Amino acid sequence: MTTKATPEERTKLDMAAARATTSIDVPRIRDLLYDGRDKWETSSRILRIMSEDPVFDKSQRPFMNRQERYKRAVKITNRLYELQGTHKWSTAEARLALDLVDEELPMHLSAATFEPVFMEQCGPYLRGKYGDLVINRGIQGCYLQTELGHGTDVGSLETTATYIPETKEFEIHSPTLTSSKWWIGALGRTATHGVVQAKLILPGGKDMGPHMFLVQLRSLQDHTTLPGITVGDIGPKVLGAYVCVDNGFARFDRVRIPRENMLSAYSSVTDDGKYVKPPHSKLGYGGMLWVRAALVGKGGWYMARAATVAIRYCTVRRQSNKGQDGLERQVISYPSVQYRLLPVLSYAYVFILLGRDLMNRVATMSTQLAAGNAAMVPEMHITSSALKILVTSMGSAGIETARRAMGGHGFSEFSGLGRWYADWLPTATYEGDNYVLDLQVVRGALKAFHALARAPPATASPPLPPSAAYLRFLHPSHSATPHADAGADWADHATAVTLLERRAAALVQARAASESASASSGGESALDADMDHRISRAAAEAYLAMRIGELVRGLPGALPAREAVVVGRLLTLGLLALVEGGLVDILSFGLLRGAPGADPSAALRIAIKGLCAELVPEAIGLTDAFGFTDWQLDSALGVEDGSVYQQLWARAQAEPLNATEPVDGYKEYIKPMLERGQRVAAAASKAKL
Amino acid sequence: MTTKATPEERTKLDMAAARATTSIDVPRIRDLLYDGRDKWETSSRILRIMSEDPVFDKSQRPFMNRQERYKRAVKITNRLYELQGTHKWSTAEARLALDLVDEELPMHLSAATFEPVFMEQCGPYLRGKYGDLVINRGIQGCYLQTELGHGTDVGSLETTATYIPETKEFEIHSPTLTSSKWWIGALGRTATHGVVQAKLILPGGKDMGPHMFLVQLRSLQDHTTLPGITVGDIGPKVLGAYVCVDNGFARFDRVRIPRENMLSAYSSVTDDGKYVKPPHSKLGYGGMLWVRAALVGKGGWYMARAATVAIRYCTVRRQSNKGQDGLERQVISYPSVQYRLLPVLSYAYVFILLGRDLMNRVATMSTQLAAGNAAMVPEMHITSSALKILVTSMGSAGIETARRAMGGHGFSEFSGLGRWYADWLPTATYEGDNYVLDLQVVRGALKAFHALARAPPATASPPLPPSAAYLRFLHPSHSATPHADAGADWADHATAVTLLERRAAALVQARAASESASASSGGESALDADMDHRISRAAAEAYLAMRIGELVRGLPGALPAREAVVVGRLLTLGLLALVEGGLVDILSFGLLRGAPGADPSAALRIAIKGLCAELVPEAIGLTDAFGFTDWQLDSALGVEDGSVYQQLWARAQAEPLNATEPVDGYKEYIKPMLERGQRVAAAASKAKL
Repeated sequence: MTTKATPEERTKLDMAAARATTSIDVPRIRDLLYDGRDKWETSSRILRIMSEDPVFDKSQRPFMNRQERYKRAVKITNRLYELQGTHKWSTAEARLALDLVDEELPMHLSAATFEPVFMEQCGPYLRGKYGDLVINRGIQGCYLQTELGHGTDVGSLETTATYIPETKEFEIHSPTLTSSKWWIGALGRTATHGVVQAKLILPGGKDMGPHMFLVQLRSLQDHTTLPGITVGDIGPKVLGAYVCVDNGFARFDRVRIPRENMLSAYSSVTDDGKYVKPPHSKLGYGGMLWVRAALVGKGGWYMARAATVAIRYCTVRRQSNKGQDGLERQVISYPSVQYRLLPVLSYAYVFILLGRDLMNRVATMSTQLAAGNAAMVPEMHITSSALKILVTSMGSAGIETARRAMGGHGFSEFSGLGRWYADWLPTATYEGDNYVLDLQVVRGALKAFHALARAPPATASPPLPPSAAYLRFLHPSHSATPHADAGADWADHATAVTLLERRAAALVQARAASESASASSGGESALDADMDHRISRAAAEAYLAMRIGELVRGLPGALPAREAVVVGRLLTLGLLALVEGGLVDILSFGLLRGAPGADPSAALRIAIKGLCAELVPEAIGLTDAFGFTDWQLDSALGVEDGSVYQQLWARAQAEPLNATEPVDGYKEYIKPMLERGQRVAAAASKAKL
Repeated sequence: MTTKATPEERTKLDMAAARATTSIDVPRIRDLLYDGRDKWETSSRILRIMSEDPVFDKSQRPFMNRQERYKRAVKITNRLYELQGTHKWSTAEARLALDLVDEELPMHLSAATFEPVFMEQCGPYLRGKYGDLVINRGIQGCYLQTELGHGTDVGSLETTATYIPETKEFEIHSPTLTSSKWWIGALGRTATHGVVQAKLILPGGKDMGPHMFLVQLRSLQDHTTLPGITVGDIGPKVLGAYVCVDNGFARFDRVRIPRENMLSAYSSVTDDGKYVKPPHSKLGYGGMLWVRAALVGKGGWYMARAATVAIRYCTVRRQSNKGQDGLERQVISYPSVQYRLLPVLSYAYVFILLGRDLMNRVATMSTQLAAGNAAMVPEMHITSSALKILVTSMGSAGIETARRAMGGHGFSEFSGLGRWYADWLPTATYEGDNYVLDLQVVRGALKAFHALARAPPATASPPLPPSAAYLRFLHPSHSATPHADAGADWADHATAVTLLERRAAALVQARAASESASASSGGESALDADMDHRISRAAAEAYLAMRIGELVRGLPGALPAREAVVVGRLLTLGLLALVEGGLVDILSFGLLRGAPGADPSAALRIAIKGLCAELVPEAIGLTDAFGFTDWQLDSALGVEDGSVYQQLWARAQAEPLNATEPVDGYKEYIKPMLERGQRVAAAASKAKL
């Protein structure tokens, strides 16, 4: 039957057929991903309102320049909060609407950086004066940390805040070009106020290091820049990323602010210029951890979108190798495509589920912090760093893998994946550069290692935090099983978890041994330059693997039997792909061995291939479970009904370059070039005669 | 002295100091990269003319939309050929100018695809009629192969060319939506003519498969589309890539063309509709190989630009860890940065040098083909595929590695690296999708394997083509040394070459064994889905390694002693990085062993770190040797004098979003939102009282 359909009708038939093969109850899995039917319904309701509102129309978006995109961004932001009033959305619902808007807006940057930092650090006076304005967007904020010459290392910032006891003011000043605040989201053209990180200088010139100050940047009457301040947008980002966001610069020429504008929850300056110390240095960490924790789930949803589009497109795209029905094969039927795509789907599930859990933990920590208890901070700091490193790097790689699996059409802007890749990419650098976070993860691992080494060897249960639980394999109580066998039961997720944990333990042990050797010889460590990155990655993946293992074990309680089996296989696939990615270390330390002369990793790869084959019939169901609407994905290749060619055709017709006939530039440039060529050719032909 | 400089002056001092430390004679190495002083001087002369001409101004480029970029593209193309006339540039010089224009133009696509295909396949009649017009751009061509529903597999194309003996015409027709030609470079708004790939249908309906036909698309009088043809631009590409290029679609509604418009160098149709067979099926391959060969050197120059910018920026950027001088450390001084960046520099040298060699080989092959000798074709096909796979994937990865090494500022469009990444990225898909080429490389390797297996075991010299020379390790004459020792002499490039060759041999042998096992059991091979990709990569890298080995051995004849040593180290670094990237296979097959319990790869990594440390003082010299001008790189972070912060500042001021005060959108959207928030906050404050 399908062979008689025209090729463009066939894509819909292929999609319907694939949807019919799934053995899972899609809504049950969707409820798991959304954390309950209620939340899914709320999300659907808000999404419907936005998608039916012409203000949120996306059809012209691919053709707009930055000014137009910025204007559209503030337009939809304003409309979103109008809708909040109309529909009586709660703060959480408005926040959800902001997540569903499918655009990185200046407002996102305000909400993600300025708001948590200000609300946590402002202290009672500023909270009373500005709290309601911040929460209700009566002022729009930004958070000014990085400078033109200085990155995330706040100790090197040059901007100064000098206290003037005579007037009870701080003087905010940018002494050099390199001290210009730079990269600040929502600063360029939008924000009215900013929290400025600046070196606090006390009377007499004592430098107290970086502190935070609230500075008004623009008039609340007419939005003009206030005196002494130079501010603007820093220009476009690579790859068209964050096109709507006005990352900005600011310079301060001895700008005075009242003493009360120092954010003083944890430290302050008295009227006469004396410094009052913070009660606990770790109390200020909450804001940053919120941002990082939010990234984990967000990255999962980015991967979910990419996997959905690519799996849908590869289901309806046919290529090469004609079958007995005379049709080319569906691209998804190629094992090498499954091998690349399905792990991306797996990681989408993993990070969505772990991201939610992490947000809950940060909330608990935040409550404890407010009560003066910082006990959770160190561990939350390491685990959130570890997950942040992984979700950002695996997210970019996963989106790009999905895009490439789609071949030529994946390169069309209408695929949507370019937009997501570009907007996700900088997460590897911001909110803690991954290379910097690597060092923190390694430091945490070494600390746990030394604590373990100091513990009495007879301790039954080694004293390890969850982030370093994998180090138990270095403890005498776990010293059995020196290596996994190539013929291990790869279908059991525990095989992969153990291997990933043992790998991390081996790397940390090697690093500690090398450190103590170089310390005793007094020389520099001969370790390779990338070792910290390797260790950090291994430690983070060991933690991730342990957490995935927990997820798998929890599935029978969260889903009906069949759904638990299928999602369990999907998560196990992600684990095996992690093992494959870590093979260099695993083989280097002899943790996986096979028969002499045989490739010990072959059985692992065959297991991955087998899991992929089991999962392919469920793939459309597993992506449908994300609950994406066509409006939400805005992808020609990811449409639910599979009509990809009609979509590509229709969108191409809207390209503004097609609007004039002949094209703008023909008369001035193309015509003269053709005529010149024709003259030269005529002369050449004549010369030949 | 340097500590007293302001931070923005210091970058220039750092750059000057780094330039002073280099021990190499930069122009000598530059001459090697440019293939002689003459070519460098020609390039400089043309570059100077272009950079001084306001038509080629780049300052507004980051802010233009697609229509503006397209118009600028045809403007500079026209100007370029005007300059050719003014300065009496040869065809080669005009071609060089086109390479130096720093923009992917519609003309590049015409020159790279239409022109070689047409000139090679057209046959004497069409050459006589159109040859001079093509060469002199009296017509502008495009090459219409891929369709909306069909990729590089020409056997599946749906477009038909039906011969009508009554009028001695072909009827070109697009029977379905999916048969629309799609992605065709320069088709959308520019080309006047196209070579169309279509199924040749003979009278009686016999389908002869794909053949090529010259079809006029637009009027030479006024550029309007000719009757029966629907044509347009397919819309933007991801990441802002190829923004100037009008990749297009076309549909043909029974468009008639004369019989002579079939490209008939190798096959044709007689007046009465009889097919005349091609004399040799391989004669048509020349055009495609030219394109692939050109990509190799081009990729080298892309990596050169990225490495130059990143190394220059990391030389002047200072971050964290203050030294005894009170300054933060130069980023380039961190071993982990060197470890990531210097291999990119190495590969730039490798692909520039090998690309030139490959072009020379294709030229030889082309001359032989013209004389009816296709002996070089199979080997050229495999080696060009192998190098194409590597240069495209290593190029994208290398540019991205360089961008990330620059941290936050690497994310600015003014870095330049986003533009290069986006424009280089699709090379992995076009001119042969890498996943398709993988299969061809594997097929070539297996063919050589079986030929070797059939050869008498006593043969002293195994019968292997250069592309599969690594298989000699499977021959009895090379069966000694079963594995390399971890303590091997890594400074000797031969160590790495041998290891990479043995790895490829082991993988090909395993694949052949598994094939014969599954053939004898009648079942499907249990091999992992990605094995072809692994084998292809290993085979390609073995070939690359052998060629790098040749380059290293040739350096003492090409450069003075000191320069040969330094460039030799740089190339050896690339080899060691290749070994590191292939460690999973190398360890899986036991090709590298260490002491029991020790990490056998540790010594390799320490060797890489050591080479990096030796090369860092030469890094600015080695990048200066590319001879880039600031105009050419157009990168704020890659300026020759190191004044990166002044550059970023100056470019940000030109951002059009900064042009109005307040920003466009304030009155309509930002002001109402702020006022609404202020009302709500006032009400909330009142309620609290």
